[in-house]
Amino acid sequence: MTSDLPIGVFDSGVGGLTVLRALRRELPNESMIYLGDTARVPYGTKSAESVIRYAIQATDHLVTRGIKLLVVACNTASAVSLDPLRQRFDPLPVVGVVEPGAAAAVATGRAQRHLVLATESTVKRHAYARAIHALAPEADVNEIACSVLVALAEEGWTDGPVAEAAARTYLAPAIAAAGKDGPDTIVLGCTHFPPLEGAIRAVAGAGPTIVDSATTTAAHVAHLLDQLHLRRTIAAPGTLTFLATDGADRFARVGSRFLGETLQPSDVELVDL
Amino acid sequence: MTSDLPIGVFDSGVGGLTVLRALRRELPNESMIYLGDTARVPYGTKSAESVIRYAIQATDHLVTRGIKLLVVACNTASAVSLDPLRQRFDPLPVVGVVEPGAAAAVATGRAQRHLVLATESTVKRHAYARAIHALAPEADVNEIACSVLVALAEEGWTDGPVAEAAARTYLAPAIAAAGKDGPDTIVLGCTHFPPLEGAIRAVAGAGPTIVDSATTTAAHVAHLLDQLHLRRTIAAPGTLTFLATDGADRFARVGSRFLGETLQPSDVELVDL
Repeated sequence: MTSDLPIGVFDSGVGGLTVLRALRRELPNESMIYLGDTARVPYGTKSAESVIRYAIQATDHLVTRGIKLLVVACNTASAVSLDPLRQRFDPLPVVGVVEPGAAAAVATGRAQRHLVLATESTVKRHAYARAIHALAPEADVNEIACSVLVALAEEGWTDGPVAEAAARTYLAPAIAAAGKDGPDTIVLGCTHFPPLEGAIRAVAGAGPTIVDSATTTAAHVAHLLDQLHLRRTIAAPGTLTFLATDGADRFARVGSRFLGETLQPSDVELVDL
Repeated sequence: MTSDLPIGVFDSGVGGLTVLRALRRELPNESMIYLGDTARVPYGTKSAESVIRYAIQATDHLVTRGIKLLVVACNTASAVSLDPLRQRFDPLPVVGVVEPGAAAAVATGRAQRHLVLATESTVKRHAYARAIHALAPEADVNEIACSVLVALAEEGWTDGPVAEAAARTYLAPAIAAAGKDGPDTIVLGCTHFPPLEGAIRAVAGAGPTIVDSATTTAAHVAHLLDQLHLRRTIAAPGTLTFLATDGADRFARVGSRFLGETLQPSDVELVDL
């Protein structure tokens, strides 16, 4: 492992570009290689066995190209594949987004009442509840599967009547049931959800803090690079490489929204896993 | 090819069960084997090359098991893979859903003004416009990509505020732009859309006829079986086999809504393509 290698970032599609964006802000001099498995997106409704198989294939590809650290930017893949990846690719450092997100929620929550919005498969595994309870055993954690929000973010419908009605349908019952002791954090447990923060806030009111794992994951990666003496030594902007398993046009068009920078289809290299 | 073999039905996931339902109503004595590629759903946002590869793998599997006719129940796969499938699996009869849907629209449309709701990739290929123009060269065809409706149908949100807001967002501009000469048919160009007919009708008003290709596809298959002398000769209910590439639990739960019958996870055999 050498410090000049890029950081590998793997996601089921384009949602993980919100994590790449936070990494770039935190570590501007690092080179990064992003692989979005757009041929098989979404992972959130697939079985753990399939997601683990896909994660191993993606990591194999990134390791062949050369990376010094892997960020699993997809919450679903983080929830099920971290242990298999660490075993198989040891000593490659592997960082997921669930534990940093849980740590941020626990650090923020005054009363430790957390409402987690995630995909079907992350909720089914209780990935956030387990990670939060590891840090705050008495915490009250309510996890809601919000599959439709993924499609809304992909369509660019991040505000307006559909986003608001969907956020209301998912959140209102949980918030009403909690009464005046509503949640003090709302954890965005899927990388597709940060663009929908406004619609979520409109339903949740001003009370809860909205926690997004992208920023804390980036801080965690910076810390780990220091610990492992793997920071890039050259003080110049790092390079960015984009790989996708399908649809360079769509990756560029939808991905630009998540990355916050304009991508061209020619920036995206198609790979077969 | 013998008349006792089952009809093969291939779809990207569970949406094609609306077509299977129509086939069962039309042909109760035929055995059928349904393969849903749930590991790679949705196809509607993927490239044509990927969809063709998946369709060939699925058909290979069904042909190995033995089928006398293939129905491609997915509109996206029908739009891109019929020719490659017919070439590769000749003389297997291959029926898609786009042409029967287009024929139904042309037969229904008084003024031949058609509004087609489909997936991104079906719209991009202008599959319905081409099929309708082959029958009615002067027809006016407006195609709209409605990706979010797929997610709503999968979530079971087929009525209520989210479905209505989504239908309105997609349809209202097209209907307003058409003025009093609104569309006379609305073609449901994705097998996920029939459960959303109520929400679509609420936006479209009483004027347009809503056309769904499931029924016309089933009638076309019955006609073709007669022509080819491939009708099953035994006058007893046919058997049903369900195959999926991922998630038997989810297939049974979501699929029951599309099939209109209760499926158990144990009814679903997982296969690897």
